[in-house]
Amino acid sequence: MFQTALANLGHCLKKAQANAATRSFSPDVLVGLRLAPDMLPLASQVRIACDAAKNGTARVSGLEAPRMADDETTLVQLQERIAKTLAWLDTVPADAFDGREAQDVTFPIGKDATRTMPAEAYLKHWVIPNVYFHVTTVYALLRQAGVDLGKVDFLVGEEAGA
Amino acid sequence: MFQTALANLGHCLKKAQANAATRSFSPDVLVGLRLAPDMLPLASQVRIACDAAKNGTARVSGLEAPRMADDETTLVQLQERIAKTLAWLDTVPADAFDGREAQDVTFPIGKDATRTMPAEAYLKHWVIPNVYFHVTTVYALLRQAGVDLGKVDFLVGEEAGA
Repeated sequence: MFQTALANLGHCLKKAQANAATRSFSPDVLVGLRLAPDMLPLASQVRIACDAAKNGTARVSGLEAPRMADDETTLVQLQERIAKTLAWLDTVPADAFDGREAQDVTFPIGKDATRTMPAEAYLKHWVIPNVYFHVTTVYALLRQAGVDLGKVDFLVGEEAGA
Repeated sequence: MFQTALANLGHCLKKAQANAATRSFSPDVLVGLRLAPDMLPLASQVRIACDAAKNGTARVSGLEAPRMADDETTLVQLQERIAKTLAWLDTVPADAFDGREAQDVTFPIGKDATRTMPAEAYLKHWVIPNVYFHVTTVYALLRQAGVDLGKVDFLVGEEAGA
């Protein structure tokens, strides 16, 4: 699910890059867009989508995930972050979560707090909603910016033939 | 997951209702808000979140889901739709999906087309992303309207103590 969601996110950013070229503005202005002044910009939404998938997988599986600097300033760099995250997810064995359903996972909430949940609940009620939250927020930002996306781009990405 | 997502959606709408009272505008103007002129308004986003969860569950389980008129014009009516959807989901036995992973599911795409996928892929790559897509879009609309929400309201709803 995370691999599909992030691949579709990359597909949406690719369409945004092409749309900016058509409309003759720098695609990198998209990186700073926000839905509200007190919401994080597009760059952070992409980073958090990637990290939610990567760190959630690492915490449940016990595998170590690569750390990434939060220093992207262009759409191309954000695509590279998605690609690096997908490359790491590709290394995770299909059985990495087996037998770990009931194991407690402790994870950060905000800057100063942590929370502990059994792994299955953590995936179902924290990680999965979180990944889709941030991918959808990027979609919303791009739609509001006039990028030619439809929900099928979010759901099936490249498979949509776009 | 659908029960949690829809309960949290109801929680966000409840905060929106209270926020409108504080700011002295009719909560029902929120129902018509759109992120972009060619995106569906908040009322439709709530309906589709409910229907994605309800109809996805029905198609995989073989149970029959209630049909609902798409006629809500107030936040209170949208809350009732969420409550009716949750009431039906409560009647679905915990084992309703057991053994159905590989069974083909055919579902509508848009007005004139259908698509067929095995039930497990349908849930993981269509229904679940779709539910979170529409709940997140409502969240985005409410945040943009100045409602005092944080991601914790989306993730843990009432449990957040709000």
